Amino acid sequence: MAHVTVEWSANLASDFDLGALLRLIAETMRERADGTFPVGGIRVRGLRTDSYVIADGANPNDGFIDLRVLMGAGRSAEFRRSFFDSLFAEVRDHLGDLFDRRPVALSMYVEEAEGWKHNSIHRRLATTKAI
Amino acid sequence: MAHVTVEWSANLASDFDLGALLRLIAETMRERADGTFPVGGIRVRGLRTDSYVIADGANPNDGFIDLRVLMGAGRSAEFRRSFFDSLFAEVRDHLGDLFDRRPVALSMYVEEAEGWKHNSIHRRLATTKAI
Amino acid sequence: MAHVTVEWSANLASDFDLGALLRLIAETMRERADGTFPVGGIRVRGLRTDSYVIADGANPNDGFIDLRVLMGAGRSAEFRRSFFDSLFAEVRDHLGDLFDRRPVALSMYVEEAEGWKHNSIHRRLATTKAI
Repeated sequence: MAHVTVEWSANLASDFDLGALLRLIAETMRERADGTFPVGGIRVRGLRTDSYVIADGANPNDGFIDLRVLMGAGRSAEFRRSFFDSLFAEVRDHLGDLFDRRPVALSMYVEEAEGWKHNSIHRRLATTKAI
Repeated sequence: MAHVTVEWSANLASDFDLGALLRLIAETMRERADGTFPVGGIRVRGLRTDSYVIADGANPNDGFIDLRVLMGAGRSAEFRRSFFDSLFAEVRDHLGDLFDRRPVALSMYVEEAEGWKHNSIHRRLATTKAI
Repeated sequence: MAHVTVEWSANLASDFDLGALLRLIAETMRERADGTFPVGGIRVRGLRTDSYVIADGANPNDGFIDLRVLMGAGRSAEFRRSFFDSLFAEVRDHLGDLFDRRPVALSMYVEEAEGWKHNSIHRRLATTKAI
């Protein structure tokens, strides 16, 4: 499984395409991780933040985009470094010149954990493939 | 203390009763954990997510419900396994045939941490009991 | 970098000034940590929670305010204890008699992690200072 939450400051609403960013992250996990992330376990979501103080609090144009990843334990350190370096570069490149147009802090954190799960999306995917 | 956040995809809004689920979780922590979670420290909340990409992103009916638990350190591994196995089973059973009606990914993660706290709910509870 | 998320129950909306609390936290990180937190990396935000069950669920006046801090690894245990003791005391004092006026649970948790970052706020700050 892999959960990604993209939290972002509301003042960026007109400056990037949240849906496109979420789709890019999910696609990268599906297609560029050698199958490490089972498709049915991918859940990428956006969380808009309306109240914030950034840096010195002096510039209403300062914005942030913060990715938090939670994935199952057991992937090697090499995989994690390589895959998330690539994912972060993809996100940064996708945002393009946003960092030049205004002050923006992009960040990403990755955490591993075991948990409990019950998931009927895998069955839907199997059915979809069979058609 | 015990914090639980139930994050869920907005497309499930008509398919489960969030309030009932939050009450079930709080009640299970109060009444089925042998007093391990002081009542005044229980905080269960829901967080609706309106933007997401799930699995292959191809099915607008795919949904998710994700529980994140944060509790104080020091409970035994046996307690954690036993209690959270039960809690997860309760939540899954409470959701009933939701997993058959549509593709849904349910998950739960448990983290332990020490923190800082200041809490006047314990006093309210003591007063309530005294009446 | 330092991320702080202040999650709070919506029933406290008229009882504390969220903006003032966020500014207090950011200011404390900027000015009372001996430069430990680079200004351009500070992101403090509020997250209102509209659905919750607190304690025994019996008192609609019960509220909570929960701070989650994520900061880069490497600060000493002494710094962490001393700084976050102070920050928590500041927050508690700032909230004043809120804890007497109604039952409220205040909490704070601190986590360390390394991550990925790309940040054009530092450049904005350098420019601001130069003027």
